[in-house]
Amino acid sequence: MKRSEIIDAQRRALKMLADAGIAVTEEEARTVEVADFGLGRLESEGLEIVVYENNDRYCAKELVLFPFQTCPEHKHPPVQGRSGKQETFRCRKGVVYLYIPGTPGEKVAAKAPNEFYTVFHEIVLKPGEQYTLPPETLHWFQAGPEGGIVSEFSSPSVDEADIFTDPNIKRIPIIED
Amino acid sequence: MKRSEIIDAQRRALKMLADAGIAVTEEEARTVEVADFGLGRLESEGLEIVVYENNDRYCAKELVLFPFQTCPEHKHPPVQGRSGKQETFRCRKGVVYLYIPGTPGEKVAAKAPNEFYTVFHEIVLKPGEQYTLPPETLHWFQAGPEGGIVSEFSSPSVDEADIFTDPNIKRIPIIED
Repeated sequence: MKRSEIIDAQRRALKMLADAGIAVTEEEARTVEVADFGLGRLESEGLEIVVYENNDRYCAKELVLFPFQTCPEHKHPPVQGRSGKQETFRCRKGVVYLYIPGTPGEKVAAKAPNEFYTVFHEIVLKPGEQYTLPPETLHWFQAGPEGGIVSEFSSPSVDEADIFTDPNIKRIPIIED
Repeated sequence: MKRSEIIDAQRRALKMLADAGIAVTEEEARTVEVADFGLGRLESEGLEIVVYENNDRYCAKELVLFPFQTCPEHKHPPVQGRSGKQETFRCRKGVVYLYIPGTPGEKVAAKAPNEFYTVFHEIVLKPGEQYTLPPETLHWFQAGPEGGIVSEFSSPSVDEADIFTDPNIKRIPIIED
């Protein structure tokens, strides 16, 4: 990703947070993580993240999704003898479609961006609704037409350990000046 | 507490949440916890709580404080061989004054409701600001004139284990019909 693209995505994410009445500090605003997963198509597969806290006992983040933006399918493996990350997604704004293993519904609201999406049991999250994923659950999620904001409460986060279905994904971004 | 008082406090807390743009489910609205700590003076010492998630790995709550309402001084001891609860308070709305052990500031903004308050090192939390308390840190907090809403991210919560400075406190409420 180019730095200019990151700055633009940060600006848009911060506007969505502000419009939702979610305050962040100046430091958090400067360091909003923009993840394109090394794919170079942020609008369709990407995620904007404000990490509130990530210590050795728990983690809390705000996840911002642009309209129809998708967080690619992945799971959280055990790390250094600890169970994989367990996480609760709580929708704060917009609508977010979460997909996990299980029977696909008759209608699947989101459109998978490509062939690297394999689970289609749909959970619809509207503001105030939440879902807790057991460790090692394969999952992906996509925002509706207005985008979405999701609070993530979880056990500690070790992003670099995540296992993505798409072998082209690099979780830790490479920034070009 | 009388049931009518609980229902009134729930109603007020839900209005504050709605005004802050924080959505809750109908089930959460019905089960907002109103804690008067067995003291019978909810307006000065009390707390309204929405528990989003409390599992064996992490916990997330929304804490609502009415104007000048105080959560009494307490700490979280080790439980069943696990370190005491570690918690992050993130202010979402209003101003909240948090007190921990350490040098008291020249001016202490909050007024302790009685003699059972012993720590006065002040941390001011405005929207977007947060503070993480190490386990077993004695602490209390009070909202400013507009009340306050605080997101609490933490290790698992075992409220009945909390140790309060005021020996009259009973953490688990007794409800009279």
